[in-house]
Amino acid sequence: MKLVRLIAMMMAFATPIWAGTDPLPSWNDGASKAAIVDFVSHSVDPASAGFVPVPDRIAVFDNDGTLWSEQPVYFQFFFALDQARAKAAADPAWANTPILQAAATGDMKTIMAGGEAALIEIVSATHSGMTVEQFTAEVAKWIATAKHPQTGLPYTGMTFQPMIELLDYLRANDYQTYIVSGGGVDFMRAFAETAYGIPPQNVVGSLGKASVVMVDGKPEVMKDPGIAFIDDKDGKPIGIERAIGKRPVFTAGNSDGDLAMLQWTSAGTGPRFGMIVHHTDAAREWAYDRDSHIGKLDKALDAAPAAGWTVVDMKTDWAKIWTGQ
Amino acid sequence: MKLVRLIAMMMAFATPIWAGTDPLPSWNDGASKAAIVDFVSHSVDPASAGFVPVPDRIAVFDNDGTLWSEQPVYFQFFFALDQARAKAAADPAWANTPILQAAATGDMKTIMAGGEAALIEIVSATHSGMTVEQFTAEVAKWIATAKHPQTGLPYTGMTFQPMIELLDYLRANDYQTYIVSGGGVDFMRAFAETAYGIPPQNVVGSLGKASVVMVDGKPEVMKDPGIAFIDDKDGKPIGIERAIGKRPVFTAGNSDGDLAMLQWTSAGTGPRFGMIVHHTDAAREWAYDRDSHIGKLDKALDAAPAAGWTVVDMKTDWAKIWTGQ
Repeated sequence: MKLVRLIAMMMAFATPIWAGTDPLPSWNDGASKAAIVDFVSHSVDPASAGFVPVPDRIAVFDNDGTLWSEQPVYFQFFFALDQARAKAAADPAWANTPILQAAATGDMKTIMAGGEAALIEIVSATHSGMTVEQFTAEVAKWIATAKHPQTGLPYTGMTFQPMIELLDYLRANDYQTYIVSGGGVDFMRAFAETAYGIPPQNVVGSLGKASVVMVDGKPEVMKDPGIAFIDDKDGKPIGIERAIGKRPVFTAGNSDGDLAMLQWTSAGTGPRFGMIVHHTDAAREWAYDRDSHIGKLDKALDAAPAAGWTVVDMKTDWAKIWTGQ
Repeated sequence: MKLVRLIAMMMAFATPIWAGTDPLPSWNDGASKAAIVDFVSHSVDPASAGFVPVPDRIAVFDNDGTLWSEQPVYFQFFFALDQARAKAAADPAWANTPILQAAATGDMKTIMAGGEAALIEIVSATHSGMTVEQFTAEVAKWIATAKHPQTGLPYTGMTFQPMIELLDYLRANDYQTYIVSGGGVDFMRAFAETAYGIPPQNVVGSLGKASVVMVDGKPEVMKDPGIAFIDDKDGKPIGIERAIGKRPVFTAGNSDGDLAMLQWTSAGTGPRFGMIVHHTDAAREWAYDRDSHIGKLDKALDAAPAAGWTVVDMKTDWAKIWTGQ
C-alpha cells in the first residue's frame, strides 16, 4: 500500500498531473469544458487570483439528474416499488393501505392520484423497520440486479460518464467531492462509493427518523417511519452547513431544487463555480426543463446568465452520456 | 507542497512511522498506553487479525471532558453567559425574561433554579439571530480572549495534551478523526481545527434550527431559536449514522452520555477499541464520576470491564494534562 502510494506520489511529482492527457475526454471542446478547466487550473495556482486553498476546495453535486438520470421517476422510487412488491409477496398483510397495495401491484395510476403524500407513504413504509446496515444491504442487492424499465440498463449504468470524469478531475486537484441530494442518505451511500468514488461520510441527503434499539442484545440504529429532514431547496444550504460546515466553492445541480444551493455558493467571497446540467438530449437521454414533473428547471435556468453559472448542454457538450453504454 | 508530501511518503516507506520515537510522550507507560499502541499497530498490519482497512479507520471522540475539561460547567455555557452580558449591554431590551436577565448579570442561583429549561433558553437566545458565519466569528473572537474563571487559562489551553497526541497518532496511521459531541456543532467548529486538527466537516454535534434568508440580496443560513437535534446518548449513534454513515472502530468518551456510542461501536464485527477518560486528578484537573452534575460517569464505568473498554486514569496514565500548562 505504502509502495503504491509512494510510486503514485513520485509520478505526480515528476510530471504535472494530466500533462498531455485530457482529464475530461467525454466532454466535447466548447465553452463548458473550457470554463471548468479554467476554474480548476486557476484554483490550484497560488499565483492566480482564482487560487483556492486546499481546505476550501469543497465541491458539491446534486445526484438525481446531475450524476445519474432521473426519468421517468427518481430511481429511488423504482427501488421503493420493487421493495413494496417483495414485502407484500413475503407478507400480504404488509400492504395494509390502498396506497401500499397500489405500490405492491405497480398501480401507478392510483399512486400518482395520491400525489406527494402517496410517494412519501410508499418511501416511508419501504425504508423503515430495519437497521441502517440491513437497509444498505437491501439497496446494494437491488442495485446489483435491477434494470431500468425503459433502457434495460442497470441503474449504475445510467450514471453520467462526463460527471464521473469531473469528480475524478476535481479530486486529482485536491478537491473534496460531496453529494448533496434530496435523495435518502442511506439509499445513496449504498452505491456512491462504487459508482462515484464518494465515500459514505461525503454523502449528504434527506434523513428519515431513527432510534437506537437493542437487537439480540446489541444496540442498532433503526430506520423509523417518517421524515426528519428534507435536503432540497433551502434544505440544501442548511444540509451543507450541518454536515460540512463550509460554503462550497464548486456546486453542480440540474433543477430548481438546486437553486438555493447555487445561489448560496455564489454569494460566498472569492472564486466560485456554479454548474447546471441541462437535459437537452432526447435521443441519448431525455430532454426536459421548465415543464417537467421531475427535475423541473425554470428559475435556476433564468438566473444562470446573471449569476455566471455554466449551463451544460448535454446534447452538444457531452460526447458520451452513460457509463453503461 | 508536492515535494513535501513526497519526502514524507519516502520517509514513511524507509522506516516505520514513529520508529524510535514515542508517539504518545504525555502518556505514562502502563496498561492504557499499551492497549492503544497494541490496537493501532495491529490495525495497520495486514497480516494481523486486528487489521482494519483504511476506509474503515473511523475514530470518534466526545469533546467535553474527553478532549478538553468541562468543569465547573461546559465551556460553551461560559460562552453563552459572556454573550448574554454583551448583548444586554448593547441592548438592555435583549434580556427580556427573568432567565435572560439572570444570564446577563451572571446570577447563577436563578439560572440553576431554572434547571435544564433555563440552560436551553440561554443557549438558544445567545446562539440564534445571526448567520452561521457571524456566529463562528463571534466564537472565534471569544475563544481567543476569554479565560477560565478558576484556572485563568484560555479555554483552548485546557485541551488535553495526551488526547491531542492520540489524535495525531491515529491520523498518522490513516485514521479519520471525528468529534461526536453533545455540544453545538457551530460552536465546536470555530476552534476544532486549530485546537485538535479536526476540520469542520469532521465535527458532529447538536443542531439548532436554521433557515435560509436573504441578507443584502444574498442568501445566508440563519441560526434560529430552538433545537433540531441533540447529539447525546442515543443521539450519538444516530448522529454518526447521519453524518458519517459508518460504525466507528475507535470511540472515546468520558460519561454516560457516551455509553450508547461506546456500546454501538463495540457491537460491530471486527476489531474495536473503546476508551473512557476517567477524571481522577483533583490536584491537576478535577476528580468526579458517579455523582457529578456534569459528565456523570456511572453506567458506562460499570459496563467497561465486560465490554473490554480501556478506562484511562488521568492521574496515573497522563504525565501532562493541559496543553496550556
